[in-house]
Amino acid sequence: MKKYLMTPGPTPIPPEVLLKMAEPIIHHRTPQFMAILKEANEGLKYVFQTKNDVITFASSGTGAMEASVINVLSAGDKCIVVRGGKFGERFAEIAQAYGITPINIDVQWGTAPDPEIIKATLKKNPDVKAVYTTLCETSTGTTYDIESIGKIVKDTPAILVVDAISGLGADQLMTDEWAVDIVVAGSQKGLMLPPGLSFCSVSQKAMGLAEKSKAPKFYFSFKAAKKALDKTDTPWTPAITLIIGLTQAIKLMREEGLDNIFKRHHKLAEATRQGVKAIALELYSKRPSDAITAIKVPAGVDGEKLVKSMRDTHGVTIAGGQEELKGKIFRIAHMGFMEKFDVVAALTATEIGLAEQGYKFEYGKSQGAAEKVLLD
Amino acid sequence: MKKYLMTPGPTPIPPEVLLKMAEPIIHHRTPQFMAILKEANEGLKYVFQTKNDVITFASSGTGAMEASVINVLSAGDKCIVVRGGKFGERFAEIAQAYGITPINIDVQWGTAPDPEIIKATLKKNPDVKAVYTTLCETSTGTTYDIESIGKIVKDTPAILVVDAISGLGADQLMTDEWAVDIVVAGSQKGLMLPPGLSFCSVSQKAMGLAEKSKAPKFYFSFKAAKKALDKTDTPWTPAITLIIGLTQAIKLMREEGLDNIFKRHHKLAEATRQGVKAIALELYSKRPSDAITAIKVPAGVDGEKLVKSMRDTHGVTIAGGQEELKGKIFRIAHMGFMEKFDVVAALTATEIGLAEQGYKFEYGKSQGAAEKVLLD
Repeated sequence: MKKYLMTPGPTPIPPEVLLKMAEPIIHHRTPQFMAILKEANEGLKYVFQTKNDVITFASSGTGAMEASVINVLSAGDKCIVVRGGKFGERFAEIAQAYGITPINIDVQWGTAPDPEIIKATLKKNPDVKAVYTTLCETSTGTTYDIESIGKIVKDTPAILVVDAISGLGADQLMTDEWAVDIVVAGSQKGLMLPPGLSFCSVSQKAMGLAEKSKAPKFYFSFKAAKKALDKTDTPWTPAITLIIGLTQAIKLMREEGLDNIFKRHHKLAEATRQGVKAIALELYSKRPSDAITAIKVPAGVDGEKLVKSMRDTHGVTIAGGQEELKGKIFRIAHMGFMEKFDVVAALTATEIGLAEQGYKFEYGKSQGAAEKVLLD
Repeated sequence: MKKYLMTPGPTPIPPEVLLKMAEPIIHHRTPQFMAILKEANEGLKYVFQTKNDVITFASSGTGAMEASVINVLSAGDKCIVVRGGKFGERFAEIAQAYGITPINIDVQWGTAPDPEIIKATLKKNPDVKAVYTTLCETSTGTTYDIESIGKIVKDTPAILVVDAISGLGADQLMTDEWAVDIVVAGSQKGLMLPPGLSFCSVSQKAMGLAEKSKAPKFYFSFKAAKKALDKTDTPWTPAITLIIGLTQAIKLMREEGLDNIFKRHHKLAEATRQGVKAIALELYSKRPSDAITAIKVPAGVDGEKLVKSMRDTHGVTIAGGQEELKGKIFRIAHMGFMEKFDVVAALTATEIGLAEQGYKFEYGKSQGAAEKVLLD
């Protein structure tokens, strides 16, 4: 059966990237690989929209999240953590594992935090050293107003850390212009690669904290990475094939251009949103991301069965809800190597899956509404 | 120019493994991937020769080295570290980063530790919780007598941790029979994969220590990994394509059989050793590994120039010496996806490289000596 991958990571990988990674491997301590690493490091700055160094780790995104905590804080420090979903909560768990106190700003799942609450919390806790938040909270399909948060944090001694693992390259994120000190990202989302690489862009302000941090670390050390980066090297063996794939993926992104990439994602997301609304489905998020659309499972439909049938009977893999949202939402990703026909395929599979469970609607209505957006 | 990779990691990757990893990616939270993960986990037990759980991380080998320290020890603890090269030293650096005191047993580079010294050090320090040593010290091409060390550590409260990153699947290592509590490994060596995966096999004795360890950790947590492993899952997003490649590589290893794999490596190593001796070169190691051969650069030859010329002029990438051995040795790996003709190619390139620098010998002498071993 032909397979369609519509999950928020991994996302589909362009064939030219897959084939590039299938070429015979080369050694990493060679001028040949050094040239590739240089291209990758420069390309990351383009995608992250930053002049800061972008550090690459061989790890999943969680590794870079941990790095963004343990390199800038020490046991006994305080940080603010915005928790509006599964991934926001992870920052608080990491902080606690290192004896750092998270001041949690709990946001109703599916909504974005009010920047004013962050401002007030910072004012009340002037000793906070870092604010952790999320660009796109994948578990709820919600994008946060990072620009406004950046304006608030910029004028305090604290740094702003944004988990952009599932948003980078889909939702707009202007690292330098919005004053984001650390952007955390992963390879298997907007970057169109397999999982296995993670990234931290690090501002001067964040590097200043890194000089003072006493949390123990080794593999995820910013200082070790930075020392190697300055010589276009890596402190440990890099994930060679993934870095080769990265240069290829960024080449494709440069060809399309970042602005066009964001426009495409916005159009695909809007088409998906209008599509599902046209068959009387409701969006879960009050501030939906352009990377992923979370949709409420309608009454009378078994959400887990829907995801399973779409995947196992029809070959279309989407994501269900996680933790407290299990069975209550389903999530269609339109991020990375995606085009308009992929969105229509996802909507068609959704209609078929819903029809199987007796949900009533006019066939073709979602695709029609989507097409109207896509034609624009 | 046709390229030949003869480095101790990465090593050449079989084309069927490369192509398997180039197939369209699948999502990791699916029954489809769960079946792959199950096969990978079982296959690792076969290769590690253990009944213990083998935990897989998305990281380079250094990450698993760190995991083998921070999961079983706490700040203030003592451990023994055998340092006979660059990689032995890394364990001591990791321990120190976490406030753990390493009692270093310094071994002359190129030699293996006398197990009796480990016995005496353990006796003198009964509060030592772990002994860190190496199967094959890649930087010197030396293999250690893990079997004898295992017999000594087994009867103490300490656990034995062996860095087998570059030896696993090349030098014999009987994890359970030799009572090794934690075997640390990486993907880019005997396992014939790209770098990006690392492994820790963990005994019950080691898991007992893990229950008590207070060193802070998150991404590299044994407990989080074990909890997921019991459900054939991973705590964080796995490096999907590399795990798919792993099942393919282990399939090849099962087909050949572990005993035959060790015999092949021994023969290739012996052929390399006899080859270089036949042109009056000297081995660097007193206890040479079957994974890699370290050779002293003869008088009058520039070691760094030799490696560079072999790579850039002739397409054969070998490794030079690291740190204090820079320019003093060169290292030919014969590990993983390697056959007799690869060894002859490496020897031929060595002869050509040496001849270019005026080193005198009879052309074809090294290949002849190697062939004699290979014919046996």
